[in-house]
Amino acid sequence: MSGGVLYLLPCPIAEGGAEAVLPAANFEVMRTLDYFIVENVRSARRFLSRAGVKNIDRLEFIELNEHTPPEEVEAMLAPLTQGRSGGVISEAGVPAVADPGADVVAAAHRKGLIVRPLVGPSSIVLSLMASGANGQSFAFNGYLPIKGPERTKAIRFFERRARDEGQSQIFIETPYRGDRLFGEFLEVCAPQTRLTVAADVTGEGEFIRTLTVAEWRKASAPTLAKRPAIFIIS
Amino acid sequence: MSGGVLYLLPCPIAEGGAEAVLPAANFEVMRTLDYFIVENVRSARRFLSRAGVKNIDRLEFIELNEHTPPEEVEAMLAPLTQGRSGGVISEAGVPAVADPGADVVAAAHRKGLIVRPLVGPSSIVLSLMASGANGQSFAFNGYLPIKGPERTKAIRFFERRARDEGQSQIFIETPYRGDRLFGEFLEVCAPQTRLTVAADVTGEGEFIRTLTVAEWRKASAPTLAKRPAIFIIS
Repeated sequence: MSGGVLYLLPCPIAEGGAEAVLPAANFEVMRTLDYFIVENVRSARRFLSRAGVKNIDRLEFIELNEHTPPEEVEAMLAPLTQGRSGGVISEAGVPAVADPGADVVAAAHRKGLIVRPLVGPSSIVLSLMASGANGQSFAFNGYLPIKGPERTKAIRFFERRARDEGQSQIFIETPYRGDRLFGEFLEVCAPQTRLTVAADVTGEGEFIRTLTVAEWRKASAPTLAKRPAIFIIS
Repeated sequence: MSGGVLYLLPCPIAEGGAEAVLPAANFEVMRTLDYFIVENVRSARRFLSRAGVKNIDRLEFIELNEHTPPEEVEAMLAPLTQGRSGGVISEAGVPAVADPGADVVAAAHRKGLIVRPLVGPSSIVLSLMASGANGQSFAFNGYLPIKGPERTKAIRFFERRARDEGQSQIFIETPYRGDRLFGEFLEVCAPQTRLTVAADVTGEGEFIRTLTVAEWRKASAPTLAKRPAIFIIS
């Protein structure tokens, strides 16, 4: 294989030092690269600079996000097919899991390039680890539908799957809708269903708690406003 | 909260330095602890010693694995309810995802203890990142059934779910059955189904490749004997 390597470079998911969440080896890899495919150039520059990468101005960045036309993705790999290595950096966390980075990884496989994922923080996995929920079988379902009736229907659907298949069901919610979703789970789910709320994972105010829905109904509700949150039902 | 903190301490999933896959912060946390709930005492000791923890003999270990009676799990948290912190270490990778560590985490939540997950290598997430498969919706299904007819049926079931729901389906296989499972996917799945094979993730011989089943049938098969492997259909 004469092509370059496509490195998947995680970045922090909360404020604070990158050393807390990234292995030393990642910093070494980052320092060897000069070509980056990133979800957002500004945050990628800031991340690399904080990670100790020097002379950020000599680096080449190309943006890949939800506005990128699919036909432009393959061309981003031209430097790699010519032997240069590159890095993929998403807005937060591990790239190519819940972001458009997956498209360029798929294109890299079509071109026979080597893809090398580096270790970093995934709020999905960290929340699952800390939940006590079944980790032998789990599903990440992204965001629930926004509209009321479909949302309720989806919660019921996944609660049933959690119960019937013993499969932990993981959801993500934006910082401004976390409180609402928490309330909906309490309203819709059965009392014995276990609900994990994980907010600010790896951050200063990290909060991870698993209770049954019946217990949550009696407990004081966590404050989720402005906090990225993961929910797990099991 | 006056109890100790239950730290979830990942360890490497392949030979090689722990610095390559664990953040510096993890080593600092490990050095502050003297009580560990571990899947295997021998490997946990070796891991801590290699991670630079001194005076291993002064540390207290208690084993939690598939042979542990469920009623003994709660008692493992007695030191934590008395204010001492502890760490959970599994045989490989992140604890409490596909191992008995989840039981002690669940017990910790019942006791109102704080659970703190640290970042580390998960072969599931690394493989998914590097697969190019849909990461907005994915499921980890553990091991497929061992017996032929149920196994084929399960492959068909999950392939249908991958197609109908657009949900990437992830499986793990033991080092001695990887070749067989690879052959079964090629036999059972539709030509246009994409199959990711990820072996020795983070190791020297890391191999991660996504092709359609039709392409795999024409390609040279990867050698999976004695290599831990993850498979993804999408």
